[in-house]
Amino acid sequence: MSAEIICVGTELLLGDILNSNAQYLAQQLASLGIPHYYQSTVGDNLERLQQVIDIATKRASILIFTGGLGPTPDDLTTDAIAAFFNVPLVEKPEIVADITQKFASIGRKMTPNNLKQALIPQGAEVLPNPSGTAPGIIWQPRQGLIILTFPGVPSEMKRMWQETAVPYLKSQGWGKEIIYSRMMKFRGIGESALADKVNDLFDLTNPTVAPYAGMGEVRLRVSAKANSEADAIALIEPVAQKIRDIAGLDYFGSNDDTLASVVGQLLQKKQETVSVAESCTGGGLGAIFTTISGSSDYFIGGIISYENRIKISILGVSPEDLDRFGAVSHPVAQQMAAGVQKQLKTSWGLSITGIAGPSGGTETKPVGLVYIGIACPDGTIESVEYRLGERRDRETIRTLSAYNALDLLRRKLLIQK
Amino acid sequence: MSAEIICVGTELLLGDILNSNAQYLAQQLASLGIPHYYQSTVGDNLERLQQVIDIATKRASILIFTGGLGPTPDDLTTDAIAAFFNVPLVEKPEIVADITQKFASIGRKMTPNNLKQALIPQGAEVLPNPSGTAPGIIWQPRQGLIILTFPGVPSEMKRMWQETAVPYLKSQGWGKEIIYSRMMKFRGIGESALADKVNDLFDLTNPTVAPYAGMGEVRLRVSAKANSEADAIALIEPVAQKIRDIAGLDYFGSNDDTLASVVGQLLQKKQETVSVAESCTGGGLGAIFTTISGSSDYFIGGIISYENRIKISILGVSPEDLDRFGAVSHPVAQQMAAGVQKQLKTSWGLSITGIAGPSGGTETKPVGLVYIGIACPDGTIESVEYRLGERRDRETIRTLSAYNALDLLRRKLLIQK
Repeated sequence: MSAEIICVGTELLLGDILNSNAQYLAQQLASLGIPHYYQSTVGDNLERLQQVIDIATKRASILIFTGGLGPTPDDLTTDAIAAFFNVPLVEKPEIVADITQKFASIGRKMTPNNLKQALIPQGAEVLPNPSGTAPGIIWQPRQGLIILTFPGVPSEMKRMWQETAVPYLKSQGWGKEIIYSRMMKFRGIGESALADKVNDLFDLTNPTVAPYAGMGEVRLRVSAKANSEADAIALIEPVAQKIRDIAGLDYFGSNDDTLASVVGQLLQKKQETVSVAESCTGGGLGAIFTTISGSSDYFIGGIISYENRIKISILGVSPEDLDRFGAVSHPVAQQMAAGVQKQLKTSWGLSITGIAGPSGGTETKPVGLVYIGIACPDGTIESVEYRLGERRDRETIRTLSAYNALDLLRRKLLIQK
Repeated sequence: MSAEIICVGTELLLGDILNSNAQYLAQQLASLGIPHYYQSTVGDNLERLQQVIDIATKRASILIFTGGLGPTPDDLTTDAIAAFFNVPLVEKPEIVADITQKFASIGRKMTPNNLKQALIPQGAEVLPNPSGTAPGIIWQPRQGLIILTFPGVPSEMKRMWQETAVPYLKSQGWGKEIIYSRMMKFRGIGESALADKVNDLFDLTNPTVAPYAGMGEVRLRVSAKANSEADAIALIEPVAQKIRDIAGLDYFGSNDDTLASVVGQLLQKKQETVSVAESCTGGGLGAIFTTISGSSDYFIGGIISYENRIKISILGVSPEDLDRFGAVSHPVAQQMAAGVQKQLKTSWGLSITGIAGPSGGTETKPVGLVYIGIACPDGTIESVEYRLGERRDRETIRTLSAYNALDLLRRKLLIQK
């Protein structure tokens, strides 16, 4: 018994999109312990799709399709599956009702081509799509063969996978020996520096420890094989503890923890609030704070002072200091932080001013130079200079700046009396 | 004649890495005009690799492998190819010399396992790897079949592709006819509604027209096959014009155009400025405006009024209206837009207030209810209600809200006297 992932879409063959679905599904199959030896990608072509199905049925017993379920004529996955197994398509009234309702809820009228999405092979079950109009199917066209289809839109596919496919596959006996992983997250330390510190742990076999690098964030995945999540956690925890001891403040959370969620929890615990004053990030730091539902408990708001006159008129930055030190400087970062803390009456004020590039850099103030200011509840005001590099692109510099600001606040909250 | 991409590596089957090589090679094949109908991914397993080669040789005439060329025992691509065609491996002295030299240059001693990389099938030519130790091969194992192998490291593969494979494929007569595409972008119309309107165009063969759906943004790709870019554009332009006529204001740009860049150009042309007042998006709209380098010409700043008291104290929203209509309402959206326009002294003021969820929704004000306010240079103030749906997640609702605000401004700028 093994699974094959079949990705459908001419856009994949043209290289228009990156096949992130294959990676997601591969990870999911691994975590359920379902063997998986092949992935196929094919375009929106009925004949070739059927050829791929033919090959896959000979070497796998669970076929997982993504893509080709939409309302347009080149969405052919369902047609190809039905044709290959020589089964008619039938219209499912519950899908028609669901699509009609979804169009109505956003005030749009359903066009007739959408009804195509209500056709599924006779005998197949509907795999509901809570966030889009194209549902998938779960179908056993013959003994020992399972077919699952998902739309190509990653967010829809992932939700359907988690909400419907995983329970179904578990009911079929999969996922008994599980691989359970904890992703431990670090900031303020490089991948190789962390790897050096925990080098001995890479030789472990259960759990295993493996490094990952992300956007200024380093991760270690600690994975255990066991019969239950509890057994796996019992294997993982002592190793995770060792890692936390080694990493100190550079460790900030695990799994679904984000810098924003961790900082939010710390603020909530202390019943403190924060506001932001942003220049080069243009609102990006506020946007990260407010990814968290319930962030209104501690995130009060902010001032996007992209132009200098806003720094002066609303944040109260000194025009003389702007002239003398420039907008990208320690004094201005500090005055922005203090200004927003005062204006918005919050416990903490956090500011960012920098040169995101690609233009605007000079010899003394190169692209990537960023100052983060922080105004603390005890009245102290500090700022930190970051040199994020002239070779990084604008978006990377902006994103790193915002996360550096969050991380600075996190560290202050942790060491605060 | 067509090509098949074969990606080799158990790490792909475990989902440890994203298959960006497949996308890169697919784009490259398209630009050379080499048809490409299938991609296969398989692990580091001799038998299964040979099965994949068997299938590929029956449906393609150019097989492009990435991965599995390294020095470790699980790097089996070359072995599998030689075994499948029943040809012995021979050691290439020039590869041995190259690897020895590369190790010497970084002050390391070559370990014996690296010699594995010097073995290639008898009769194959070396495809040099200037940036790594594992070379690839170019081989015609039989009439009408070409095999190219590349390491899995993306940077090494890309350089080898550009420096060696492209000239080789061109010498074989490829790349004379190119495929050139224009991606046309739309907002404010659904995928199926647009598809309905341009339905006749889907039957065209050169150029072809195909739909794509993104985050609230619909796209049509118009692709032409021709002998030069200029010829392709001449084929594309009349169809693109037809599409623009049909779509009207729903069309906003092509290729690298984004809503932020298009709105920025319109503002620059009119020498007007904009500021934002954001509630549920928390700064996300400002962050999108400032993705554009040079946006300081027209984007002045904003107020993130996440808490109501900031709406009152800085934006001047009436406390009575907040009480009477709630923060998520037409009057508050309008007062936020007018408030930020006045406070920041900009031509336009743009505001967002809504319920991003997942909590905070009520029967009359469900999750996904969003008001966008706009204060225009002529003094008019308007607001638009959006119902983005209770089933969408927080980030989707926030992102759609920000883009809807940008799109509202774009439309106003286009129809403005």
